[in-house]
Amino acid sequence: MIDIKPDFKTLKPYSVVKQDVWHYNSKVKIKIDWNEEFLVNKKVEENLIDFIRSSKYALYPDVSSIDLNIALSKYHNINHNNIMTFNGSDEALDVICRSYIEKNNIVVFRNPEYGNFITFAETSLAKIEYFYDKDPFVLDENSFKMHIEKFKPRLVYISNPNNPTGVLYNFSFLKDMIVSNPNSLFIIDEAYIDFIEKTGYGESIDEMIHFSTKVNNVIVVRTFSKLYSLAGLRIGYIVTNNEIINDLSLLRKGKNVSMLSQIAAKTAIESKDFYNEKLEIIREQKKNVINKCSNLSYVDNCYDSSANFICLRINDKVFNRLKTYLYDNGVYIRDRSSIYQLDNIIRVSIIDDMSLFIHYMDEFEKLIKNI
Amino acid sequence: MIDIKPDFKTLKPYSVVKQDVWHYNSKVKIKIDWNEEFLVNKKVEENLIDFIRSSKYALYPDVSSIDLNIALSKYHNINHNNIMTFNGSDEALDVICRSYIEKNNIVVFRNPEYGNFITFAETSLAKIEYFYDKDPFVLDENSFKMHIEKFKPRLVYISNPNNPTGVLYNFSFLKDMIVSNPNSLFIIDEAYIDFIEKTGYGESIDEMIHFSTKVNNVIVVRTFSKLYSLAGLRIGYIVTNNEIINDLSLLRKGKNVSMLSQIAAKTAIESKDFYNEKLEIIREQKKNVINKCSNLSYVDNCYDSSANFICLRINDKVFNRLKTYLYDNGVYIRDRSSIYQLDNIIRVSIIDDMSLFIHYMDEFEKLIKNI
Repeated sequence: MIDIKPDFKTLKPYSVVKQDVWHYNSKVKIKIDWNEEFLVNKKVEENLIDFIRSSKYALYPDVSSIDLNIALSKYHNINHNNIMTFNGSDEALDVICRSYIEKNNIVVFRNPEYGNFITFAETSLAKIEYFYDKDPFVLDENSFKMHIEKFKPRLVYISNPNNPTGVLYNFSFLKDMIVSNPNSLFIIDEAYIDFIEKTGYGESIDEMIHFSTKVNNVIVVRTFSKLYSLAGLRIGYIVTNNEIINDLSLLRKGKNVSMLSQIAAKTAIESKDFYNEKLEIIREQKKNVINKCSNLSYVDNCYDSSANFICLRINDKVFNRLKTYLYDNGVYIRDRSSIYQLDNIIRVSIIDDMSLFIHYMDEFEKLIKNI
Repeated sequence: MIDIKPDFKTLKPYSVVKQDVWHYNSKVKIKIDWNEEFLVNKKVEENLIDFIRSSKYALYPDVSSIDLNIALSKYHNINHNNIMTFNGSDEALDVICRSYIEKNNIVVFRNPEYGNFITFAETSLAKIEYFYDKDPFVLDENSFKMHIEKFKPRLVYISNPNNPTGVLYNFSFLKDMIVSNPNSLFIIDEAYIDFIEKTGYGESIDEMIHFSTKVNNVIVVRTFSKLYSLAGLRIGYIVTNNEIINDLSLLRKGKNVSMLSQIAAKTAIESKDFYNEKLEIIREQKKNVINKCSNLSYVDNCYDSSANFICLRINDKVFNRLKTYLYDNGVYIRDRSSIYQLDNIIRVSIIDDMSLFIHYMDEFEKLIKNI
């Protein structure tokens, strides 16, 4: 019998979440549980189909994804040597952890936060020092700063905007913290940054990307799984300085990004107008949902957010009943109530058409008022 | 400045191989350098296009790739819990190394062998004990067995058939070795096993797969990049016993296999007849190439193989000239002469139409005879 490494014996397996959508008898009517977006760009589909018809998928992919890197470098106005692509941003997070974390190194992680990062930090045997705001929907910058100064971590992970709360640190706060802690590596996961409103963050949503190329201790992570609707194709990328790119190239597997993913992502990044219009639609839908939900008797709190999702705190008396009701009607939302401080919280993705969700939230109001 | 882990400072980056085929001004006429196959299954294309038109690529992939696993379990007549899919077999090799190798553990690696495995063993900080046959084209089973008994390795990597020599260990030899060394984990990489002739290996080409589910120390690795012509889509899988599958699930990233890859692979594995016909074509082409090359004055040796490639030992006087000649005419072969014992060796993939290769080999014969 061959045992796994002793250090790994305490790890927990990747938890397989219910994915009814892939089952033949799925009753999903509106999938707003994983923050995917479904308004797709037909140009992406055309280019994918052309590529498939060319039969070039029989070839190994371009290991340096050079066409995509150049398209990204133009989009962000940076050098393509500051960019590295991955098979989804999860792979980027894993490679970063493996490259920089040694056993018992301290990693600071806010809670709540994107949980998958924890699995990568744990497989790198990090010691995790969690930070909690008093209220997870109200950022206390000073406390977070003090937490980092106290633990002097090897690595700090921040999703900005935060998942699942949707709260946002502004650029200048993060910048100060990065400069003040030159021995800590900051991962700023900007999976949802496309969705923020134009004001209140910084000069542009690319400020951290530009900053990351000039200092030695920050890696920005982006994904094509959200705004760009390419979750099923697995593509993410990082932006950082050259030395970090060189370090990570030691562990990155060359053939990791499929050729279809490279083509889809390149087409997407070159269709700026389409996604700007899409953003307007999503923002409009978010306003509608917030307006509607704020007036429902069983919603105790409806939290606005900087991302393509919002959190709703449901009245304790009907929480489970609402969950069952929505599920039975094919409305797939995400229950986040098991997370500390998020009791009775559901997270709802905002897609381009929220009418079905609004409909069932209304119906539920009638249902409980009749009783 | 954040330094990479000290243990990684001696690693070399993934070497980016020339990939002219992805350049706009590529002069590739026949690509027989990476053992890809180009006779594609139209049913795969149809299913991919249907899926793209459904826009379901906007969804995260099925994290357990259950439809594909069930198709594979039927194909191999094993339980689907003995199967795990990966973003290409390279990812499987990486996850296996990370799960079982501790710093300075001994890994036995034949030479020549699939070189990428070394990069994964090295990033897991293995101590590699190379084994060399006297003649890499003639297996010395006894010496290899003694090498393993001497070093008592944590892990043994064998590609069977071997890449780049095309030589094959038969099943019963490997089985004995696996049983005799219960404290060594054997990775049997069967990337090319589909191409072996039906006799001389064992009862069937799935013997190692079936055996792997019953013992505790062997993992079989398979890929869709060769016979199935899906290299660009990145999909590989392993077969092994349940306990090893459970161990590996601690490190496998759930979203690693894109939904397009899952669909393409499932379609492929369900089109047995198509690939059987394709195999006949490839075997026929291999015979033609061997017949032709054996009669060329400048080919010192033409090695038959169990895989979809052959090695040719080129006369030292014209080796570089031939290389340049083929390259200039768009014939992309693989120079393996830098590997120990493989001086003057080129490796030539066998695809469904080798006429262009044969043509230029003939032309070169005329060229050198005229001088």
